[in-house]
Amino acid sequence: MDDRVRMHAELLVDHCTDVSADDNVLIRAPTQAEELVVALYEQLGERGARPTTSWLNSRASRAYNREMDSEDYRTKDHDLAAMKETDVVILVGGLRNAAEMSDVDPEKRAAAGRARQPILEERLDKRWVITKHPTAADAQKAEMSTEGWKEFVYGAMDRDWEAQRERQEQLVEILDPASEVRVVSGETDLRMSIDGMETLNDYGTGNMPGGEVATSPVVDSVEGTLFVDVPFRESGREVHDARLEFEEGEVVEFDAGRNEDVLERLLETDAGARRVGELGVGMNRGIDRLSHNMLFDEKMGDTVHVALGEAMDECVPDDREFNESSRHVDVLVDVSENSFIEVDGEVIQRDGVFRFEEGFERA
Amino acid sequence: MDDRVRMHAELLVDHCTDVSADDNVLIRAPTQAEELVVALYEQLGERGARPTTSWLNSRASRAYNREMDSEDYRTKDHDLAAMKETDVVILVGGLRNAAEMSDVDPEKRAAAGRARQPILEERLDKRWVITKHPTAADAQKAEMSTEGWKEFVYGAMDRDWEAQRERQEQLVEILDPASEVRVVSGETDLRMSIDGMETLNDYGTGNMPGGEVATSPVVDSVEGTLFVDVPFRESGREVHDARLEFEEGEVVEFDAGRNEDVLERLLETDAGARRVGELGVGMNRGIDRLSHNMLFDEKMGDTVHVALGEAMDECVPDDREFNESSRHVDVLVDVSENSFIEVDGEVIQRDGVFRFEEGFERA
Repeated sequence: MDDRVRMHAELLVDHCTDVSADDNVLIRAPTQAEELVVALYEQLGERGARPTTSWLNSRASRAYNREMDSEDYRTKDHDLAAMKETDVVILVGGLRNAAEMSDVDPEKRAAAGRARQPILEERLDKRWVITKHPTAADAQKAEMSTEGWKEFVYGAMDRDWEAQRERQEQLVEILDPASEVRVVSGETDLRMSIDGMETLNDYGTGNMPGGEVATSPVVDSVEGTLFVDVPFRESGREVHDARLEFEEGEVVEFDAGRNEDVLERLLETDAGARRVGELGVGMNRGIDRLSHNMLFDEKMGDTVHVALGEAMDECVPDDREFNESSRHVDVLVDVSENSFIEVDGEVIQRDGVFRFEEGFERA
Repeated sequence: MDDRVRMHAELLVDHCTDVSADDNVLIRAPTQAEELVVALYEQLGERGARPTTSWLNSRASRAYNREMDSEDYRTKDHDLAAMKETDVVILVGGLRNAAEMSDVDPEKRAAAGRARQPILEERLDKRWVITKHPTAADAQKAEMSTEGWKEFVYGAMDRDWEAQRERQEQLVEILDPASEVRVVSGETDLRMSIDGMETLNDYGTGNMPGGEVATSPVVDSVEGTLFVDVPFRESGREVHDARLEFEEGEVVEFDAGRNEDVLERLLETDAGARRVGELGVGMNRGIDRLSHNMLFDEKMGDTVHVALGEAMDECVPDDREFNESSRHVDVLVDVSENSFIEVDGEVIQRDGVFRFEEGFERA
């Protein structure tokens, strides 16, 4: 077995989910992640935990969804019952064909997602992590060789996560007491209040790789222009140069250089999809390029991401309005050049360099 | 997709388990059965049922079991919870490497089996079927080409199951009111009482392929010699020419031409493992040769099988003694030549030909 697969498995059961004896562990993984599942079972056996694996197969999902009627989707009782009895959930991604769902009606996929919602909510109460096993199809999406993609994936994970936590903590300490945030980069000039919101430090705990600091804005506070200069994928199609104008927290105008209709359908999903659910800052310097894979792209240093839709559970106190939506779609802004982030009127990052980093004064 | 895979999937969800809308369906299948799982999802989508798949992977199991301590095995709560909420269970076999477990301590496999017992018992209350997807490794075990094995597997399944049921019913009608059964073949001369026991007609309902009629003997009634002239596999090793002498239902003497120690360990598992739990008669004429695969071998025409260990749930009335054991190991006797089966003193099968079949008088 590739030593990196074992390293990945160890991270998942120790650093990410702190598995101990007698924990019931639910793994959801695609067929093509077999190597990682074998390594996980080895680690889980060593710890005396109890794993079971739910098999994700996009060919089977496609076949099923094509035959199902949209109105017949229901929550799977047996999946929900299993989730309730689980202590730890390890969600493994890894595509075999990024276009496998291209001939499935998006409405059916949405119906399947809605039926799964109670299981998702149950999962959020467990110790869980989302990760990715490197596959040829994801390499293809990233425009990398398969071996190059493996190096990239494991390079983003094989980090000193304690050092990462400490570095990110410096940004948390800036954002936690703050009120106003402004992100300026090229055509983007976006302002929002984060007053009273919590700040999340993900150093490989919710996601592996981790490496982001995130919060949710006060729902009606978002104002200004968001220009998404990194293409994003929605319903299997790429949206280029999306421009969103916000007033009192809501998108009031939008256009896109390519696939504007896809953006339009996204914004029309529900009321929450026209609002911002998350503001995140990528801080994983092990990720040095975009790979068309949001789990990695949103952690990349020199990027800020904004999610349209559902707010972050961990960031919104109970007494504050929580932006609800059936979607949570991250879009990226490159902040490596001609950019700054201002917090309560003070610049805290310029051209991707934070105030607490070397080179900030020169930038 | 191979039409035969679709035929197989249709049989499983219609004939075998009668799936309807809203049924929760649990599939347990190995990675290498992907084609069948895709076909099942297609069928289940068409019927509006709700499938989930638990992934069986022998490499992962091996890795897990090698690291676990024997005394740490416990029932998996989340698997048990899922089973309770399930309506239909489809268990798919299909090996990738028949020797995958060869370097796992048999005691650990036994411990894993005991921990799974409550889930198994729960499953027996559902609509369930056990089947097999054809793989290269099973073909190798059967000493057939991969394509030859596929033809064999699907040939055994693509039957007129209603006609099979009717043919088998003739044997059920003989056995149901009967008291004494005697099986004589070569060196085997085994007598037992089936007085008051129920007779099972499996025409592809519990197993696919089906094709057997079975019952359980009165526990202490088994007398005589069982000579197992078809090798059977136990703990990854083949036992040849096993000879078992029964007195008052229990094995009192035994030997074997090869791997006698394996036979000895089997008989010493528990008290029930030294008794007979089942007497079965193979009646699927679509299976015309042995394939070292019990799901098929025990259904072959011209064979009788006896199981050491646990009795048949469906065959023992509540007021009768039920032979309990953690094992249920089928062993085969070839009855195609120099043989007869007697019921209450009357010959009902001679050299593999039943009384209700053509050629019986001539034989």
